[in-house]
Amino acid sequence: MAVRRGKLSVVLLILQAIFVVIFAIWADYDTTAHIIKFNNVSKALNGKTGVLETYPLFQDVHVMIFIGFGFLMTFLKRYGFTSVGLNLLVAAFVLQWGTIFHGLLHLPKSHDGKFHLNVGGMLTADFAAATVLISFGAVLGKTSPLQIIIMSVIEVALFVVNEKIGLEIFRVVDVGESMFIHAFGAYFGLAVARVLYTDDIDRSKKEGSVYHSDLFSMIGTIFLWMYWPSFNGGAASGDYRHRAILNTYFSLAACTVVTFAISSLVDKKGKLDMVHIQNATLAGGVAVGTSADLMIQPWGAILIGCVAGCLSTVGYKYITPFLSSKLKIHDTCGVNNLHGMPGILAGLAGAVAAALAMEDNYGVPGLYNTFAARIPSDNVTAGDLGFEPGLGRSAITQGGFQIVALVVTIGIAIGGGLITGFILRLPFFDNPKGDGLFDDSDYWEIPDDGFPGVDIDTPKGKVYIPDHNADTRINLV
Amino acid sequence: MAVRRGKLSVVLLILQAIFVVIFAIWADYDTTAHIIKFNNVSKALNGKTGVLETYPLFQDVHVMIFIGFGFLMTFLKRYGFTSVGLNLLVAAFVLQWGTIFHGLLHLPKSHDGKFHLNVGGMLTADFAAATVLISFGAVLGKTSPLQIIIMSVIEVALFVVNEKIGLEIFRVVDVGESMFIHAFGAYFGLAVARVLYTDDIDRSKKEGSVYHSDLFSMIGTIFLWMYWPSFNGGAASGDYRHRAILNTYFSLAACTVVTFAISSLVDKKGKLDMVHIQNATLAGGVAVGTSADLMIQPWGAILIGCVAGCLSTVGYKYITPFLSSKLKIHDTCGVNNLHGMPGILAGLAGAVAAALAMEDNYGVPGLYNTFAARIPSDNVTAGDLGFEPGLGRSAITQGGFQIVALVVTIGIAIGGGLITGFILRLPFFDNPKGDGLFDDSDYWEIPDDGFPGVDIDTPKGKVYIPDHNADTRINLV
Amino acid sequence: MAVRRGKLSVVLLILQAIFVVIFAIWADYDTTAHIIKFNNVSKALNGKTGVLETYPLFQDVHVMIFIGFGFLMTFLKRYGFTSVGLNLLVAAFVLQWGTIFHGLLHLPKSHDGKFHLNVGGMLTADFAAATVLISFGAVLGKTSPLQIIIMSVIEVALFVVNEKIGLEIFRVVDVGESMFIHAFGAYFGLAVARVLYTDDIDRSKKEGSVYHSDLFSMIGTIFLWMYWPSFNGGAASGDYRHRAILNTYFSLAACTVVTFAISSLVDKKGKLDMVHIQNATLAGGVAVGTSADLMIQPWGAILIGCVAGCLSTVGYKYITPFLSSKLKIHDTCGVNNLHGMPGILAGLAGAVAAALAMEDNYGVPGLYNTFAARIPSDNVTAGDLGFEPGLGRSAITQGGFQIVALVVTIGIAIGGGLITGFILRLPFFDNPKGDGLFDDSDYWEIPDDGFPGVDIDTPKGKVYIPDHNADTRINLV
Repeated sequence: MAVRRGKLSVVLLILQAIFVVIFAIWADYDTTAHIIKFNNVSKALNGKTGVLETYPLFQDVHVMIFIGFGFLMTFLKRYGFTSVGLNLLVAAFVLQWGTIFHGLLHLPKSHDGKFHLNVGGMLTADFAAATVLISFGAVLGKTSPLQIIIMSVIEVALFVVNEKIGLEIFRVVDVGESMFIHAFGAYFGLAVARVLYTDDIDRSKKEGSVYHSDLFSMIGTIFLWMYWPSFNGGAASGDYRHRAILNTYFSLAACTVVTFAISSLVDKKGKLDMVHIQNATLAGGVAVGTSADLMIQPWGAILIGCVAGCLSTVGYKYITPFLSSKLKIHDTCGVNNLHGMPGILAGLAGAVAAALAMEDNYGVPGLYNTFAARIPSDNVTAGDLGFEPGLGRSAITQGGFQIVALVVTIGIAIGGGLITGFILRLPFFDNPKGDGLFDDSDYWEIPDDGFPGVDIDTPKGKVYIPDHNADTRINLV
Repeated sequence: MAVRRGKLSVVLLILQAIFVVIFAIWADYDTTAHIIKFNNVSKALNGKTGVLETYPLFQDVHVMIFIGFGFLMTFLKRYGFTSVGLNLLVAAFVLQWGTIFHGLLHLPKSHDGKFHLNVGGMLTADFAAATVLISFGAVLGKTSPLQIIIMSVIEVALFVVNEKIGLEIFRVVDVGESMFIHAFGAYFGLAVARVLYTDDIDRSKKEGSVYHSDLFSMIGTIFLWMYWPSFNGGAASGDYRHRAILNTYFSLAACTVVTFAISSLVDKKGKLDMVHIQNATLAGGVAVGTSADLMIQPWGAILIGCVAGCLSTVGYKYITPFLSSKLKIHDTCGVNNLHGMPGILAGLAGAVAAALAMEDNYGVPGLYNTFAARIPSDNVTAGDLGFEPGLGRSAITQGGFQIVALVVTIGIAIGGGLITGFILRLPFFDNPKGDGLFDDSDYWEIPDDGFPGVDIDTPKGKVYIPDHNADTRINLV
Repeated sequence: MAVRRGKLSVVLLILQAIFVVIFAIWADYDTTAHIIKFNNVSKALNGKTGVLETYPLFQDVHVMIFIGFGFLMTFLKRYGFTSVGLNLLVAAFVLQWGTIFHGLLHLPKSHDGKFHLNVGGMLTADFAAATVLISFGAVLGKTSPLQIIIMSVIEVALFVVNEKIGLEIFRVVDVGESMFIHAFGAYFGLAVARVLYTDDIDRSKKEGSVYHSDLFSMIGTIFLWMYWPSFNGGAASGDYRHRAILNTYFSLAACTVVTFAISSLVDKKGKLDMVHIQNATLAGGVAVGTSADLMIQPWGAILIGCVAGCLSTVGYKYITPFLSSKLKIHDTCGVNNLHGMPGILAGLAGAVAAALAMEDNYGVPGLYNTFAARIPSDNVTAGDLGFEPGLGRSAITQGGFQIVALVVTIGIAIGGGLITGFILRLPFFDNPKGDGLFDDSDYWEIPDDGFPGVDIDTPKGKVYIPDHNADTRINLV
């Protein structure tokens, strides 16, 4: 242990110092947050600073990242400190690193050689954190803090690049980023998990929950569930945002009902499994994410939610054990079921919705505002419609590109995850093993159980027993 | 147990399938969420899509429903999974069913034969969920998941009908729906509880809390407490909303101070009772609900809060035990004290406030905007005031109708609850009994206590002892 | 114990009765919440009622006060009921008392002899609650509920007066009130703690956490962390608010990274300490509070966060033990590290930022809107700039006044705290001692551990052992 001391600290302090320098050179406030620039533009901007319109939804997403992901992962009985604590560190780290990498990548387009900060950018940075935290779920309990920081550095870069490819080259839609965040994060994490697999993992007796840790986990689940409409709608505005909120709300509701039904159905005694309720109930939020602002109709959203709940619950019951035992892909939080497969479903639903989008059901401005690549490519026709010329894609072509973006996303995720996994296996990064798996105590000072107790002799050796009524009973030392 | 398998699943899947069909036939996006219709109306609607104005308050209410009610009920030591898990299922179910029933009931007024979804409707659906969850509190630990789903189906229908009667026939005001939601939900649930009463309930040793379950419960309490101003003000706008928020905030603050005072006063040793703090502190939010947007003045709101805190605490101390032992009404969460009696108080306060509303203290437009039934009934007088003719009610008459609505609400709740109770007693619905009461383990896979342990011999037989330090001490298999 | 019965109750009921009377005489709704006044002003006010613009941020702060502070303090293993329960009482009490004292103090300026309630005032009242709850953290576990109520009465008055002196006499800026709330609350509480110090405190074995209580505490930490941008930006508007949000967001992120680095670095084995993560991660929010809306640049905010995280973690590791052992200042929650020293840092950063504020980097309107005391004092020059004449302060002078306000704040806090401490030592207020320290059981009915169990003989005497599997194993009694 003594060897480890300082390693994490030094890496964090160096990276943080670099962040300060980069912000000093290249970051500035956005116009609406800049005292001089703001005063030079119309005061009417006031109501449109993004704070009023976007900040409440940003805060909902913020809660999803820090409470949602953080507490969802506290289900492990001896790993709560790392789950919620390291979640905080990773997210705080990525908020900065994601802002920087996104900013620098888009610097060539900047009029003043700086990238500009506003509430919308805070939302984007939180999205980057979500991506890494999904991957974290796949390797939870099996990685050191240092490994997770290194993983964050690499994954954020690939996430930003992949998203840019999807949006700017393939010109696809993905309002809730179910492809770019959920599918990407899941398959990146699973690839890392595959490389880090050891037999120790299956032998560990510490992977599992206790009654209270499952309740802590439900805090995470429910905040994720409630605020998911803000996740899918936060980056949109007007009727797009309104529709994204409605579709996500109903998709989640339907997904939850189906999850309970299937969870009970696949159990021999008809009992519910808390793992399903904690996770599969959320799959509806993922699965509707790509098409949430499209004209999928309320029943379409509900149907997507139903399929997602079924798929995800079945995944936890049958696919996760299969992946672990046959493919040596151990998925601690089952991110394949909550983010991976529902992310693919989202991509497919988005492709179908895109292939069905016509002037009939979107109107002229609606269609071309939604799918800019479908604007006719010749100047005159586009001009008559009131738009700059686009790529003239057909509905089917747009649907095809949605699929291409999905496939490329998964490809980059798996490739990037495999490479990252091999890097993380370097001895320097202190991959935990044996008794250190699924256990906080290598990384945290753990309070003793809090109650004075005694050792007693049992047939199996000495056992330490806390005396829960100690203070009002006897005085043990 | 094996018999039960599939029953809940089949019912849920059938109902969910019906929901998809109904949404497909009759549901559509509201104008402000519809891409074509939205683009055909003024873009100025943008700021008024309801998303900007109502969504943040909707999300507060959403948290009350899922975290608030869900965790408030986790105080039972062995029933946390059902409390928070079934709360999620029921609410997700009612969000859809409430939307459907409300939509179908109002279909005759629709211009296009569809009901239209928007954020305001999401708030209404959440209100329906609140009603059912209040009733759930009365029967908590004494009902199967299947019973609760059936109860939801019936109760939501009655809730929507009763609300429609109150608003459209009696023309009453109830901005926070303390009569329509809280009093209705409480007395419906108590009537069900009366019918389901068995002697097993009083004999159960599992009804009760442990230290940590009481802390989980406080998560629910505090989120309910904080966001209650959004509950009472969410359906209003302009100065009505602002006033509802202010009155609720101060009523709750006063209620909390009085609850602590009375809780300590009624205990022989002057100690506080966590049950009172978890529940009675919230009674001020219920009690001010009907009159929250009326001109009750800040001191009026505070006075209502004081009375509510006192009434509710006394209820927990003296009335709940009396109802259980004498009337065989066993009220697990004490909903009579938190929702029932404070709901009646709210109705009475609303009646008094309505009877005192004059042009003096409301102004001409204010008075008739608030109480449309008080607009003079002859065309000329009404027209001079700038309104369509109303019913020409006097202040006293309006106050009387407020009472009538309260009485009818309680009547429908009790009648409906009794009938529902008898339906739920059908053997098909698997009413729990004996050891199955207040216990998750019939419905959930429960993790073992998480620590390896041993059996030891005691004077009273073998006792299983978890070894809290097992991993760092001895290796117990 | 019997003696105590009723004392707290009587004090609370009398104070609450006085509050009702004061509200009845002097409180009224603000124009935007008043039905007649609102209808007499332009309906255009609708969008500016403060509800739309401020309410979402108010609710974030509300969560910080009740969930944030309340759960942060539940880390003590046997003091969770008091932490979260008394936190609720104190805050509910101060919401009213803070509103009253602030209202009465500003009554001379009122046009109608009343103080007026609106959402902005609710935010101010919540700020007053924050101040008291910070002090509560210093004396947590060592005070009776009655003592805390008395402390609240005195502290709120001094807080409001000190803030008025700072804003109206010294004319300083402190948008997040890091001086007026955090430094004030911390040093007031520490002064009280010094006077209440007894040797029993160091001897108590009950001060400390258990695994689950540390997780409950993290609920508080994370909600404080997430919503801190709303705390620092809630009282501002336009670009000031936007900047305050951005600076706080990045300061906290950097602070968190540095806290993890230093926490690991100062531990012999390189382990993280949960106390640091629960608290020092938040110091960045405090430290950037005074200058959050100034043009400190993003890198400036990040640098402040880095320094704060380091300072606070080092404080927990080295300064808290020193204060306790050498100066007999026992600081239960370490408020000196989270609020005190970071509050001083905030004041200094604010002074530096003020001393660097020029027309160059703020623009003419920006500079004088921010620092009204810097507007030239002669009519003509001021008029040319479009302002009423000010005090004509230079940048350096403004910076000096910022320091003066900080020093005066700390002086009033310490003086007021010492006097309050001596008052609280009066026997009437039942200062806890010995076994009553850090223990809920004197003030709360505590549930037994919830599981039937048995006494067994051990070498150290009888020990009570809960049987965690009792119901499925043997039937004990």
